This record gives sequence, C-alpha cells and structure tokens, in this order.
Amino acid sequence: MSRWEPNSRGRLEQAALQLYSERGFEQTTVADIAMRAGLTERTFFRHFADKREVLFGGESSLQEISMNAIACAPDPLAPIDAVAVALDAWGVLIQDRRELVRQRRAVIAANAELQARELLKRASLASAIADALRRRGVADPAASLTAEAGIAVFKVAFERWMNEPGQQDLPQLIRETLDQLKAVTAGGCKVQRELVP
Amino acid sequence: MSRWEPNSRGRLEQAALQLYSERGFEQTTVADIAMRAGLTERTFFRHFADKREVLFGGESSLQEISMNAIACAPDPLAPIDAVAVALDAWGVLIQDRRELVRQRRAVIAANAELQARELLKRASLASAIADALRRRGVADPAASLTAEAGIAVFKVAFERWMNEPGQQDLPQLIRETLDQLKAVTAGGCKVQRELVP
Repeated sequence: MSRWEPNSRGRLEQAALQLYSERGFEQTTVADIAMRAGLTERTFFRHFADKREVLFGGESSLQEISMNAIACAPDPLAPIDAVAVALDAWGVLIQDRRELVRQRRAVIAANAELQARELLKRASLASAIADALRRRGVADPAASLTAEAGIAVFKVAFERWMNEPGQQDLPQLIRETLDQLKAVTAGGCKVQRELVP
Repeated sequence: MSRWEPNSRGRLEQAALQLYSERGFEQTTVADIAMRAGLTERTFFRHFADKREVLFGGESSLQEISMNAIACAPDPLAPIDAVAVALDAWGVLIQDRRELVRQRRAVIAANAELQARELLKRASLASAIADALRRRGVADPAASLTAEAGIAVFKVAFERWMNEPGQQDLPQLIRETLDQLKAVTAGGCKVQRELVP
C-alpha cells in the first residue's frame, strides 16, 4: 500500500544527514533514515540505491549541468571561461542548499572511505568537463588541464565559502578564485633547470 | 639469524610489482613477495608496514622533496614557479623509475581501493605544497590555489608521459604543461553573470 508522499526525496535526505551527523554514517541504517523521515524503507529505495548514495546522488546532476553549460557556452568564450559558466551553475545550485551541504561535508570529513569517494567524484567531474571541452573542439592537453584547473578553483572557493562565516555568495567567490588563479599563474617566469636541487 | 641483504628494499619493490601485475594486488601475499625477492617476510616488514605501502611508500619522499624545493627556491621566484621547482624534482625522481612507475600505475588502475588511496595521496601532497608556500609567506587562497594548480599540472604531464610512447623527458613535459596552464588561464575574459543557464 504505497502512496505518494510529497517531497519524499528531500525528507529522506534531510533525515539521513541529521542521523549521519548525530550517530555517524556507519551507525545509521536505512531503516533509521526511513523512520526519521516518517516514510518506509521501500520509499527510500525508490530514491536511493543505498545510504551512501544519499551523499553522492548529486554527482550526476553536477555532471549534467557541466555538460550543458559547456556545450551551450557562447563560441567566443575561452575554454577556461566555458568551464567558469559550469562552475557558476554549480555555485548557484550548491548555495541554495548551504545547511545540507555543510552537514554533508562534516559527515564526509569524519569517514576515510567517504573522503576517498568524494575524491573519486571530483576526479570523475574533471573527466566529464574535459570531455565536454573536447566536444567543443579543445585539444588535449589543454582540455584536461583546463578541467583540472576548474576543479581546483571550485575546491578552493568552496572551502572559503564553508570556512568564512560571512561568505554567502558562492558563485561570486568562484569568480574571484578564478581571477586569482589567473593572477598566480600569470605571475611566473620560465623555470631554470639549474634551480633543481 | 637476519643478515644484511644488498638493496633488499628495491628487490622487494620489484618483486611486489611483478606479482601485483601478474596476479592482482588482492591475490598477492607478503609471503609471496618475500619468496619472489629471495628474502624473508621479516625483511619485508623491516621496509614496509604492509603490501599497500610498497605502492605508496614514496609519498613521504615526494612530500619532503616538495618542502625542501619550495623552502629553498630563490626569493624572487613567484609561488607558481617555486612549485615548479618541486615538480621538476618529482619529475627527475620518477623518470628514473619509468618501468616500476608504469607497473604501479596499471596495478592501481585495476583496483578501486588503490585508486582512492592514490587520490588521497595527491590531496595530501597538495596540502603539503600549500603549507610550504604559506611558510614562504604566500597568503591564502593563493597558497592552496597555487598548490592545486601545481598538482593539476603534474597529473596532466604525467599522463602524457605515460601515454605517449616517444615521451622520455618528464621534467620537460612538466615545464611545457605549466606553460600551457599559463596559456589556458591567460586566454580568458571575465565571466558574465548573464551567461549562466
């Protein structure tokens, strides 16, 4: 006797993050999550394959957003700025979920396996961005390099957004961080072989 | 009755990588490795905490090299070029071990847990580089951003070095890749908010 429950996915996600924060990820079961959300385990499994997917289910939306943003970015945009359009869209999406994102980050930081999974997620987002750039006609190694640079920008901007209490505007921070990347890479000169220890 | 064995660490490493390649990482035991190297398990454990450390024991030398290279880089060098000195030193070290490095990479690619461990290693090298830059007086977020950019350059250069059969000079490839990063980040313009989907 299953019936439609309004926003069951969101309720399950909130319940899961609360429980992971209170008890730890390992100590929480799908039954606990369903009960906290006032839903059934069957409803849980209609939305998530397992309790880990509650934390990583957003990966495919970030991937899809990136593909679309990069494919649709206007032609004259340099590759790094096409990537910036994708990161901006991530920023908008993520900043609307600040409290959930903060809980998620703390849960992941407390568990080595989840940390590793998070790094794999970033690596696979970098691959997806590089693919999208290749489809725009960007050659390698520029495509992978630009993708990696974009992920680096996102990572640093995201940490600032989380760590600096007054920071609210993640897309703005991402733009600033990209400008800083341009500044730190522009500052250098050619490296002399003789400097190597 | 343990006795000194010449280059036992190198012999164990070679034996381990051979076995991991032949049978897979999971299917290899420390006893197998010691036997293949003609040494005892006791000797193995004098050099490595476990069979995984054969693959990741180099992390601390890369970390130490980076700290030294960045601390000793001449003052006028921009942060990104101080990082380049460290990456150049990595390149020299790694290219001397091309065959072992190639085997190691294939073993890691075949095992999800090892892939995750490899990503953690890169993340912790990025942190170490950022720390070394902070000690040079580089402020955040420039320190973390420069470190992440350096890791991105290394990753892309390393993949090229492994995938392009004619490529021998890893330090040269690292320098080229850094120049490409400078080019891809310099190419852009400011992102317009209106472009966001």
